[in-house]
Parts: sequence; C-alpha cells; structure tokens
Amino acid sequence: MARILVINSNTTEGVTRRIAEAAAAATPPGAEVTTITAPFGLPLIVTRADWLVAGPATLAGLAAHRGGFDAAVVACFGDPGVEAAREMFDVPVIGISEAAFHAACLLGRRFGIVSFTAALRPMFEDCLERSGLAARCAGFRMGPAFAGDPGQVAEERRGLLLELVRASVEEDGAEVVILAGGPLAGVAATLQPEVSVPLVDGTVAGVRLAAALAGMAPARRAVRARPLSGYPEGLGRLYGG
Amino acid sequence: MARILVINSNTTEGVTRRIAEAAAAATPPGAEVTTITAPFGLPLIVTRADWLVAGPATLAGLAAHRGGFDAAVVACFGDPGVEAAREMFDVPVIGISEAAFHAACLLGRRFGIVSFTAALRPMFEDCLERSGLAARCAGFRMGPAFAGDPGQVAEERRGLLLELVRASVEEDGAEVVILAGGPLAGVAATLQPEVSVPLVDGTVAGVRLAAALAGMAPARRAVRARPLSGYPEGLGRLYGG
Amino acid sequence: MARILVINSNTTEGVTRRIAEAAAAATPPGAEVTTITAPFGLPLIVTRADWLVAGPATLAGLAAHRGGFDAAVVACFGDPGVEAAREMFDVPVIGISEAAFHAACLLGRRFGIVSFTAALRPMFEDCLERSGLAARCAGFRMGPAFAGDPGQVAEERRGLLLELVRASVEEDGAEVVILAGGPLAGVAATLQPEVSVPLVDGTVAGVRLAAALAGMAPARRAVRARPLSGYPEGLGRLYGG
Amino acid sequence: MARILVINSNTTEGVTRRIAEAAAAATPPGAEVTTITAPFGLPLIVTRADWLVAGPATLAGLAAHRGGFDAAVVACFGDPGVEAAREMFDVPVIGISEAAFHAACLLGRRFGIVSFTAALRPMFEDCLERSGLAARCAGFRMGPAFAGDPGQVAEERRGLLLELVRASVEEDGAEVVILAGGPLAGVAATLQPEVSVPLVDGTVAGVRLAAALAGMAPARRAVRARPLSGYPEGLGRLYGG
Amino acid sequence: MARILVINSNTTEGVTRRIAEAAAAATPPGAEVTTITAPFGLPLIVTRADWLVAGPATLAGLAAHRGGFDAAVVACFGDPGVEAAREMFDVPVIGISEAAFHAACLLGRRFGIVSFTAALRPMFEDCLERSGLAARCAGFRMGPAFAGDPGQVAEERRGLLLELVRASVEEDGAEVVILAGGPLAGVAATLQPEVSVPLVDGTVAGVRLAAALAGMAPARRAVRARPLSGYPEGLGRLYGG
Amino acid sequence: MARILVINSNTTEGVTRRIAEAAAAATPPGAEVTTITAPFGLPLIVTRADWLVAGPATLAGLAAHRGGFDAAVVACFGDPGVEAAREMFDVPVIGISEAAFHAACLLGRRFGIVSFTAALRPMFEDCLERSGLAARCAGFRMGPAFAGDPGQVAEERRGLLLELVRASVEEDGAEVVILAGGPLAGVAATLQPEVSVPLVDGTVAGVRLAAALAGMAPARRAVRARPLSGYPEGLGRLYGG
Repeated sequence: MARILVINSNTTEGVTRRIAEAAAAATPPGAEVTTITAPFGLPLIVTRADWLVAGPATLAGLAAHRGGFDAAVVACFGDPGVEAAREMFDVPVIGISEAAFHAACLLGRRFGIVSFTAALRPMFEDCLERSGLAARCAGFRMGPAFAGDPGQVAEERRGLLLELVRASVEEDGAEVVILAGGPLAGVAATLQPEVSVPLVDGTVAGVRLAAALAGMAPARRAVRARPLSGYPEGLGRLYGG
Repeated sequence: MARILVINSNTTEGVTRRIAEAAAAATPPGAEVTTITAPFGLPLIVTRADWLVAGPATLAGLAAHRGGFDAAVVACFGDPGVEAAREMFDVPVIGISEAAFHAACLLGRRFGIVSFTAALRPMFEDCLERSGLAARCAGFRMGPAFAGDPGQVAEERRGLLLELVRASVEEDGAEVVILAGGPLAGVAATLQPEVSVPLVDGTVAGVRLAAALAGMAPARRAVRARPLSGYPEGLGRLYGG
Repeated sequence: MARILVINSNTTEGVTRRIAEAAAAATPPGAEVTTITAPFGLPLIVTRADWLVAGPATLAGLAAHRGGFDAAVVACFGDPGVEAAREMFDVPVIGISEAAFHAACLLGRRFGIVSFTAALRPMFEDCLERSGLAARCAGFRMGPAFAGDPGQVAEERRGLLLELVRASVEEDGAEVVILAGGPLAGVAATLQPEVSVPLVDGTVAGVRLAAALAGMAPARRAVRARPLSGYPEGLGRLYGG
Repeated sequence: MARILVINSNTTEGVTRRIAEAAAAATPPGAEVTTITAPFGLPLIVTRADWLVAGPATLAGLAAHRGGFDAAVVACFGDPGVEAAREMFDVPVIGISEAAFHAACLLGRRFGIVSFTAALRPMFEDCLERSGLAARCAGFRMGPAFAGDPGQVAEERRGLLLELVRASVEEDGAEVVILAGGPLAGVAATLQPEVSVPLVDGTVAGVRLAAALAGMAPARRAVRARPLSGYPEGLGRLYGG
Repeated sequence: MARILVINSNTTEGVTRRIAEAAAAATPPGAEVTTITAPFGLPLIVTRADWLVAGPATLAGLAAHRGGFDAAVVACFGDPGVEAAREMFDVPVIGISEAAFHAACLLGRRFGIVSFTAALRPMFEDCLERSGLAARCAGFRMGPAFAGDPGQVAEERRGLLLELVRASVEEDGAEVVILAGGPLAGVAATLQPEVSVPLVDGTVAGVRLAAALAGMAPARRAVRARPLSGYPEGLGRLYGG
Repeated sequence: MARILVINSNTTEGVTRRIAEAAAAATPPGAEVTTITAPFGLPLIVTRADWLVAGPATLAGLAAHRGGFDAAVVACFGDPGVEAAREMFDVPVIGISEAAFHAACLLGRRFGIVSFTAALRPMFEDCLERSGLAARCAGFRMGPAFAGDPGQVAEERRGLLLELVRASVEEDGAEVVILAGGPLAGVAATLQPEVSVPLVDGTVAGVRLAAALAGMAPARRAVRARPLSGYPEGLGRLYGG
C-alpha cells in the first residue's frame, strides 16, 4: 500500500479540504492519501515572494511526517519547495504543476494552460520554464483579475473557462489543456464532458504520478549536518542529518 | 481494473518474453498487463528506417486489440507509432522512451542516458529532441558496437554499464540515469543497489505511467474514413472509422 | 544529366499530375524529372498517422526505382519517409517541406507559413520542429477547414491566400512566405506578381535543391540484412542488402 | 550619494567581512556600501535546499533596512531571494551570479564559469538557466570536492584555478571567465595579471551594477496585505503592506 | 574620473546633440562623458545594410580617440561595430541595445520592447537574438510607419507610446519596458511618471553600464598587423597594431 | 543561362583563383560563374572586426556588377555582407557558410564542422548561431594555430583533417561533415574517397544553391535614397536608389 502525502502549501484549511477531495477522487488502487496543511506561511500563494516563503513551510510540513510516506505531492501551483525536498527526502516528491506538464505531454503534442486569472501567469511561466517544456506549450489563456471568493470562482467563471479552453484548442492549437491554479482543483472533471481534448487537473496528475513513482528512489545528495536558525525545529532537524 | 496492453514493436518473441517479465514486475495494484508482439515488421529495431516500418506494425498490433485495453505501452525505445496511435485510439498510448524521460524529470533535475552501444544513439537523440526535454539531458554515455547476443548483453556488459553510469553522474552531472535500449529491460533494478542516484527503466516507467493515466482521454482528432491500401486489413479498419 | 525522381506520397493520380506539372516547370537545365505515385497507402495525407503509413509507402516507391535516379524528392508536405530513405539510398533524398524551409532561409531572415486550412498545422509544426528552424519562422497563417475539392482550393481561396500572405508579412514580420500543402503546388508562381516578398513553393524548392545536391553522397549507414515481414516485397528487398 | 546594501545570505560573519572588503574595493565614486549578514539561516549555502531557506532570510535582512538603501546586492552565488525581493522593494535588487553573467556578456561573446569545487555546479546551473543566458556560456570548469577551510581555498587552489581558467579559454573558447562561489570573492583581481581575458568577480559586478541601476525603479507588483506566520516579525511586516 | 566616450553611429549632428543631452543627464558621479559623431556613413540607420556600413564608421570614430577613453558607448540601436570594437580596444565597448536588454533583465523577469515604428523591428530582432535573451522578451509593440521629423516623433506619438507600453505590460506580461530607437533617447524619463513598471532608456543604460564596467578589461585577441585598404587612414591604423 | 557572381571578400588574388577553380568545378549545367575579388579591405578575414570591414567591401564588389548577375555567392566563411546584400539586390545572395549549413541539413541529421585552425572558431560560431541551426550541429573539431602559408595548409594538414573528420563522425555523431575555411576550398572532394559520410564544401554548396535559387526573388525592402559618405562611390550609388 503506497502512502501518498499531499501537502497544501498555504495555510488555509478550506483549500486543504478541497484538495483532499480532489486527491481522494484520484487515488489509484493500492494507494492511500493523507492531505495536510503547511504548518506556517501565507493563506494564499500568488507571487514569487509568496512562492519563496511557502517553500520552507512546505519542507517543514513534509519533515513532520518524515518516514511516514512513500511519495509526496506538493499541491500548490508553482511547486514551492519541490526541488529542495528532492534533496532532503528519500522518496519521490512531485509538484502539481510539473505533474500537469508531464502528464499533458504524454497525452498530446502541445498543451495549453488555462486559468481564471492572469495574476497567476508570472508564477506559471516561471515553473513552465523551469520544467524545460516551454516548447511544448501552445500558450496561456487566462481570465481577468478576480476579487471574489476563490472557493466560488470555478462556478462563477465556468462559462469563461470553457471559452478559454475553446480558444486554446481552436486558436492556439492545443491538443491537451491544463486547468491551472489551486481554486480549480477538481474542476477539469466537471468540464471534460463539454470538451473534445483531454483536460488535465494538477492535483489528479500529481497523485497519480506520485503513486506511479513510489519506490523509485529520488535524486538526492547526502546532507551535511549544519545548524539552521530562525526556522521551526522540525525543519532544522532535517539539516541535522 | 486497468487493462494495460504492452506491445513489443519488433517481431522477436524472445524479446517479448523479456518485456513481459519486466512489465509484470512493474505492474501496480489494480492493473493487469498483457504483452503482445508486433504482427509484422523487423526482428530488431535499430535505425530510423527500422523505426518507420515498425510504426504501422505497432498500430496494427494495437488495432487488433482495439476496445480491449485502457492504456497502451509501446515497448520499443524510439517510440514508433506512438504519436499516430494517440490520434487513432481513445485511450492513452505511451512510449517507453518518453516515459523514461518524463519519469526521470520528476526524480531529478538533469538525467543521463546510458546504453550498451552507440549504434542506438541517433534514434535516442531523435526521440529526446521530439520530447522537447533536451535541455534537461546531461548527456549520453554509450558503449562500443556490440555484435553478440542481445539477450546476453546485460550480463556481459554489466561492468561497463556501471562505469558508464558513474561517468554520467560524476562527469556529466546527471542526477538520474536512464538505462536505454530494449535489451536492458529490467536491468536497472539489478544495478540500482550499486548506484546512488535513481536508475530509470523505460519499461517500468511506461507501465507505471500508463496505469497512472488510464482513464484520462488522449488527444485525438476525428478520423475521416479513407481507404488504406497495402497494409493488413486490421490497420485498414482503423481508417474505416 | 541528373535524374530526379519525384514521388507523390499519396495514392491519388490527380495529385501526381499536378505535382508533375509543377516539377516540370521547375526543372533546371541538365536535369530530368520523373514523377511517380506511392504504390500503396492513403489517397490524402493529413494527420500524423497518415504521415506514418505514408512513410513505408514512400520508401517502397523509391525502392522500385533504385539505381535509376540521382536524387529524389518526396512531394508531400510533412516529408514522410525522408529520414529513413536517407539511410537506405546512396543518393540525396529531400522532402518538400524541409526544402521550403531551407530555401526560405537563404532568401530572407524570417519566413511565414501560409496554407489554406488549419487542419494541416500540426503536421507542419512537427516538421518545422524537426528541421530545427523554428526560431526563423515568423508564424503560421492558415485558413479555416475546407471540405471542398482540393483540386479547386487554390482558385476558390485565392483571395484568402493573398490576405494571409499580407498578414504574415505586415503583422508577423515575415521576409519570405512559404505556401504550404500539396494542393497549393504551383500556386506561388501565380500569386508572386501581387506580393512584394519571395513566395516559396515546396515542389519547386524540392526539385531545385535535389538537382543542386545530386552527386553529393547522402548520410548513410550500412544496412544489416534482416527479414522484413508484412510489407510488399520491394521494400523487403531494401532490407535484404 | 547612492546607498548600496550588500547582504551575505549565510550567517557566517567571517564571510561577511570578506564580502565587505571586496565590496569596498569595488565601490564606485558617489556610492557608499553597507554589508550585513543574514539574520538567520545556514552558515554555508551549497544545495538547492540551502538556497531555498536562505531566501526568506535574505528578504528579512533587507526588510530590516527597508527605506535605508537605494539598491541592494545579494552576495551569495545562486541569488537566493532576489526575484522575490524585486516584488517587495521599490529599489533595484541584484544577485551576484546574475550580475556576473550580465557583466560578462558585455565584455565578450561567450563566458566560462570557473569554481574551486564541482559541488556548487547544480546551483550554478540553475541560476544560469534562470538567467536565460545558457547559450552564451562556454562551459563549466570546476575543481574536485574541497573539505578544507573555505577561507583558505583561494590560496590553496590558486594554481588549480589558473589551470581551470586556461582550459576554459583555450579548450572551451571562453572570451571572459567568471570566478564563481563565495569563497572566491576578490580573487579575480589577484589572478587577472596572469590571464589574458577579463576575469569577472560576482561581488564586484554586483556592486558596480547596483550602483549603476540605482534610481531606476524595479519591477514590482502591489503587495496585497496578508498575515505571514512562522517567520520573524520583520518579514511579516513586508506583507503587511 | 572614468572617461566615457559616446558615439552616435550616424552622421546627423542634431541626433548627436540629443544623445549628448540624454547621456549628460545619466552620467554618474566620477565619470565624464564626451559625445561624438561618426566621421562618415549615413544620416540615419534603419536597415541591416545601414547597420553594416555604420560599423566601420563607428570603429573609425573610436579609433580617432584611442587611448583617450576608459569605456565607450555606441549610441545607435542595433549596436553597429560593437563586437568588432571589443576585439580592437583595451576598454569596454557597450552598445545601447544590449545595455538596455541586460539592464532590463536586472530589473524584472521579462521585458517588452516598444518603439514608434515597426520599420525598426528587423534590426531590433537581430540584436535581441544576438544577445541570447530572446526567451526573456515578452514581445514587441511598435507603431506604424512614420514619415515625419524624427526629432518630433517623441512628442507627436506620446499618446501612442503610452498605449503601446500599456499593452506590453497588460497583454504581453512585460515587467519592464524598453523604449527603443534613437529618436526616443531621453523619452523614458518623461513617460515614467505615468507607468507602473520601470522604463529603460538605452542611452541611459549604456552610459551607466559603461561607467560601471570601466576598468574591467574587455575580451580581446591580439591584432595581427595587416594592410587595410579603402577605408580612412585612422581605421587602417587600428590594423597596423 | 544563370549568371552566378562569386566574390572573394578578401583582397588576395591568389585566394580568388583558388575559389574560381572550386566554383568552376561545381558549376551546374545552365549556369556560368564569374569570380571577382573584393575591391578593398583586408588580405585575410579572421576576426569579427575583419568580418565587419569586409562587409561593405563585399557590397561594393557586388554593386560594381549590379544588373549583371542572377545570383551571387559570397565566398568567405562568415558570410560578410550577405544579409545587407539581400536588402540591396533583387537577386539571391548566398554566403558559403550558410550554404554549407543548409546543404548539410539536407544530407543528414547532424553535421560536424571541421577546420584546420581553432582561430576561426569564434567567427564560425557566430554564423552558426545566426543561421539558427546550432541544434543540428554535432560540434566543432579544429586544428591548432597555423602560421604557415594558407595555400599549403590543405596538403600539410591532410592527415590531421582526416583525423578530425573521423572524430567528428565517431565521437560526436556527425552524419555529415563540413570542411570550413577559405583555404580548404576544393579539399572536400579530395578527402571524400576516404570518408564514409558526405563532406560538404562551402564553395561548392554556395554555387550549387545559388544556381538553384536564381530567379526566386530575394527578400528586399525598398531602399530610401540617402547620402553615404566615406565609402567608394559605387557603394554610395546603391544608396542613391
């Protein structure tokens, strides 16, 4: 039984619940998923600075469960802390944006990225570049600024999302479309019946790929024990060896 | 229960048996694997021309089982017929080289590619380029020409393979290493205990990722019915709608 | 006298006749052109799967004339079978899309690609990527779906084509424009008087470049004799040595 | 008088002193430099995980001096926290590795990167990729693992460094060479007399470019006030608006 | 006192005066700027051919002041003669377009390029490619053809420029915007109050970066003495050793 | 009868004679070749500065024969003046290095570049980048510095050249090899019998491709009449309209 730990990198419990639901729906046979919330940090991750402070929080969350999971999923678009975690843990750690990119590539030649608000674009562009897959991206299609309740955006902007998906397919030539951004977790499944190309949900892709890779040792260098100051004790213990 | 169809794109039954063993060892809970042999073509796939003629043979093999699988794996480095199959079937079709590349990216930043003979390099370079992941490849390390029995190469060249893996990690900076080429199916697991970075086996990666993506519809365009001549009837039926 | 063999990769004789006319008009002094039809396959090549099955058919067509030509042109956008043919024959084999890309680069810094229907774009993008020249492409401008007679599209969409060329030059910054797609063979010459940048026709470029390279030995590796099953005898003989 | 704040992203005061000396030697007329130490974190930054935890520490160090500087230099190869700081502060913030890359590009076509130990290569590769300048890099030349006192490495490995620089120029074609890594701060000036191409020191480049850009407002998005938990108060105040 | 020589690569004295004003406003403490006009060539540089003939003229202008400057700025978008000058002079030589690109990268992740007329785009694209920074460019936004007095274009098209900057930021995602083209020298400062992202002026960036790099020896190969015919004597002397 | 004008961009008549011989041997039926020497400039082109001053000299040489040729070949590796000439003349103008790159791409997937001395590498790298084909280059193999008579280098270094070609093919994976550099004009044909992959000679490729493209109008923008000072009259007339 592969134990998958999913961590919400922000501190909002409501978001964690939504992620847990999407993860549960995606859990493959032979795996069990536990979803946790970052132990500190910010209630919402939007900017590069947010991404940065969410990274150590994500590491600390994983550290608190060290030894208790066979693979981890960082359920925050932008994948904060993922590459650092790969150095620190002996199991695969996968971010939901990289999971979405790689899954999309296995489903079609070029993928579009759709989200409800352009405010997320710089962070998405950063992680797309980091993945090395920019040449396989057919382009971004994002909605305007959104000031409402993120928990409602999927419903309020359902029509807009379908229109953006259509533009990605017909105008940009996307053969697969990724629905990106935390508040859209689980939305792909509800829109799929109206769309002719595969819709990829990062949380689903993350859980599925983490289960698939469990047992393949991660890339990892030996950690040299060093004192870490200014962070919660659990994170420091990771550095203690 | 996800039904995974694995196809050996060459016509050699002995190779199919070795693939079937590696696939069986990698089958995740909730999946079942059937391994078949290409219905026609060549006994060994080495060159780009080989790759080309193996493509329709692979399509024909899949066509003969149409409707009987939830995801397919093309178990031939170079991924012959994979992109064509994505257009023709309603389920995910994954090649073992692209599977290896994407899995490697999720396990470390840069991957090395190791194989027993440089004769395979042009075809590997082609599929690396096609994946768009060349920037994440730390380089190739390949042995000299091999004229012996491919079924014995893994044992005969075990020491060489370990040396090539070491060079990939220490000299090229690889954080993950792919063991590429059909005759190395299943070898990664036997070398892993002596290597400090993850070793990726294409067949294992292919089966795991196919199971992970089963149920996500593939990219696909409607096929316009057209007469196909000169190929076995089963392939023609794919074009008949 | 350089003998140029031009092959239409689909099975439609009417298309072969149009290609033969365009090739004849482009034949340089000291060359003679023979145009043939693929011996099997599909009546029209549109998708990646079509491209794949057209490849062995193209090889077989060339094999039937082996030793009788000094250079070959594969007159099908997408260049099916070209890289395989380079391994199997001792003379240059050139595809009309790569010919168009390279000729365009020698005529201006950035080239636009114009065609009558967006349905061809995925295959064109594939071969553009394969050529390595994507950075020199100013973009695609394609018309909407076309359900009529391909033989009439050049006339029916003449105005649209001129408008797409204009957009490519004025909005995308193209300094040369390629008119792509089999049904547009020979059309560049008729539109050129109304356009201020060079228009490149793939068939013309293919014939001219093939004649130019005749006598320069192609890249080629020795073929190891192997039995090929499931294909017409002529193709198998290529593998027999 | 432009006030330049230089921050050492690790917590070792001895390193800060060395950086302060190199910065003082590089201070242009009309600028004054203050060098500080990260208020928390690690004594040495080597891995990607180190880079991550050093980021918020760097932000916090800058936040403690907010309003008191006209440009900042993050004096740690890898540039931890720099892109986040650009969003949070109204003045230019420059990392010493990006400074070295951009300065090198203005002094020659292709730059080599030399350092005393290959252990730093992954972090350097990451920031090279991030800069977008990989195509202008002639390659890395790094020494073997170093277990001694970093404060002595410049002297102990002087001969090795000169040899690596020579190889970068003569074998890799570098027209400029960057001496990378904190312990090499100030070393370029002492080796320059024996080298025919420009040697670039990140600290020098960082201070010079920060002074040059002071007064040009940085890229910045309005920060939405949000509660930040788990970090020292000063960092939280950045998020308070 | 760093002596910065700024050269206008065209022969129009009025343009030299405008550049001299912008350069004076940007001169940092401890530097003094002298602005000169190319000794021969064309009154305006627009095309690639213009760029070419302006190159030797720029070299000749610098040669006439050899030994009298510590760094040079080629104040012509397109940077004619800059890479050649780097081989011939012992001091840094910087072009205003590369200066703008590198400065922009230090101020934000992706930069837009705005100019008053699309006629300049091919030359800008050439130098962007040459810089290697195309991946960090968010796109071009250029006005239509301009047939009026270049000296007036900044005022006449002020509204248009602001609109193009807005589109670059809001539609293309630029985090910094470069105002490109000789006639826009000094304009960035006047528009900056109405724009929320940094505006970069090539002349300002060039002067600032030249002062910053003064004293860092340029990349340079020994010049083998050879007779140069057909050019003014001063240029020939450069080749005399 | 296509009239091909070949210009040697340096001022050494002996080199012109060697080029004329190689061009004559490559002239296809229906073409006639005239070879001229640059009217001014340098006796040998090695550096980027050389390249720059050779550009206007090349333009001037072509201008003196304006109207008297149907296509031109710039027979100097580095292609000085070629892109400028494309704007100024109504016929195709092709450089021998771009001709070699494009011809090589049509003969095999990846090409190696071999020359007798590494001193030429920076200029070759520049033109490779400019062509956009760097991804298809398998690498450079160059001999050491050469101080002897360039006219003798082909014979003196015949053994070295064969060894470099072998390394390019066997170690770098080149499927085609370009013999680059003026003094190697005509050498490919003499080495070909001992080499199993195609050897490409720039002069041969240039003449053949120029003949192939004659009659296809080049990319060209209308030239605005402007006074050009400091250059020979013939060049000024090009600018006069």
